[in-house]
Amino acid sequence: MRHFVEELGELKNRLLAMGALVESAIYRSVQCLAQKDANLAQQILQDEARINQMEIEIDELATRLLALQQPMAADLRFLTAAIKINNDLERMGDLAVNIVERALALRPEPVVQPLIDIPRMAQLTQSMVRKSLDAFVRGDAELARSVLLADDAVDDLRDSIYEELVRFMQEDSAHVRPGVSLMFVARSLERLADHATNIAEDVLFLVQGVEVRHHAEARD
Amino acid sequence: MRHFVEELGELKNRLLAMGALVESAIYRSVQCLAQKDANLAQQILQDEARINQMEIEIDELATRLLALQQPMAADLRFLTAAIKINNDLERMGDLAVNIVERALALRPEPVVQPLIDIPRMAQLTQSMVRKSLDAFVRGDAELARSVLLADDAVDDLRDSIYEELVRFMQEDSAHVRPGVSLMFVARSLERLADHATNIAEDVLFLVQGVEVRHHAEARD
Repeated sequence: MRHFVEELGELKNRLLAMGALVESAIYRSVQCLAQKDANLAQQILQDEARINQMEIEIDELATRLLALQQPMAADLRFLTAAIKINNDLERMGDLAVNIVERALALRPEPVVQPLIDIPRMAQLTQSMVRKSLDAFVRGDAELARSVLLADDAVDDLRDSIYEELVRFMQEDSAHVRPGVSLMFVARSLERLADHATNIAEDVLFLVQGVEVRHHAEARD
Repeated sequence: MRHFVEELGELKNRLLAMGALVESAIYRSVQCLAQKDANLAQQILQDEARINQMEIEIDELATRLLALQQPMAADLRFLTAAIKINNDLERMGDLAVNIVERALALRPEPVVQPLIDIPRMAQLTQSMVRKSLDAFVRGDAELARSVLLADDAVDDLRDSIYEELVRFMQEDSAHVRPGVSLMFVARSLERLADHATNIAEDVLFLVQGVEVRHHAEARD
């Protein structure tokens, strides 16, 4: 049997590999919105299946390490954080798929509006995902804290996008269907940002042992 | 220090108390939609703060039990399931709050339509939540499996509600804003059903040691 420290390293590497796949799925799902590329969509669906498989394997590894060892406080924190981050990443893969599904639903409709502020929201969200994973690798509390702040900016952006989309749909009944799809895309982006925030909170807990959950109310 | 078995019982009781609170929050959030009662809304917001606190305490208890003991396989499965169910319940509290917020946003608008099939969807979702928690208490795999089946019915109902709401919004631009709110309510109900499904899957894993996650693709 390998040394416990090596096993922890393996767990971390697997989480990072899964994170990289999730990050790329998000990036490409947003590309799908603009480019409506069916091949790209297919790739993301395949990646999601891999992400789901990775989640199960990481969960098994983390549970095995909990069972085989009597972990020290810091290792225990790492293992429970790993289980949570794993769960967040899996949900993020699902959200990328949701965005792709909406993109495909939009396909028959003309892209009437230049997608409003959605590309900006997508960019901000992707940067949060990247930073939360970097913060996890480096144990960087400062970087993790910057993710929590960015979440508020994403929420503001979502509010203004919703308002714009309501006006857009009110203008013309033909705008209702694409407007609804774009609203759900904005919603998925907001939730991706929430998951990145969860990861950042777990990193802060890992690094500082400080409980920072529920810093913002009524997230979901 | 109390006996490990007693501590596990305490953990289970706390999860059930939290589950009862979540169940009631969901029930009342849907009432808010029909009755637009600001006091009721306030109560749900207060309950959510309690739910958040319970989540942190349950997490601490579960983590402490993982650390203090060298749990046997079955206990370890119970502890990791408890951590996941705890997380699901907390998110469900957030979703009840989301429904309340949408209900309040609807307040200035006349309830033009009889809320379409949303009350039926709410009823089905509540029954899934109740059954998933009952299945957890009793370790009842049959009941847990019935929750997985009900999830498909909820998804079908959601599809037909979306279609109806799109038509409703297309009819009249004054319908767009309330239509969007109702769409997000349907979305929150769907996600509540997903969380109930997660709990049912954890119960099956606990009872049978069988991995049933990802039985349906692209949930979120």
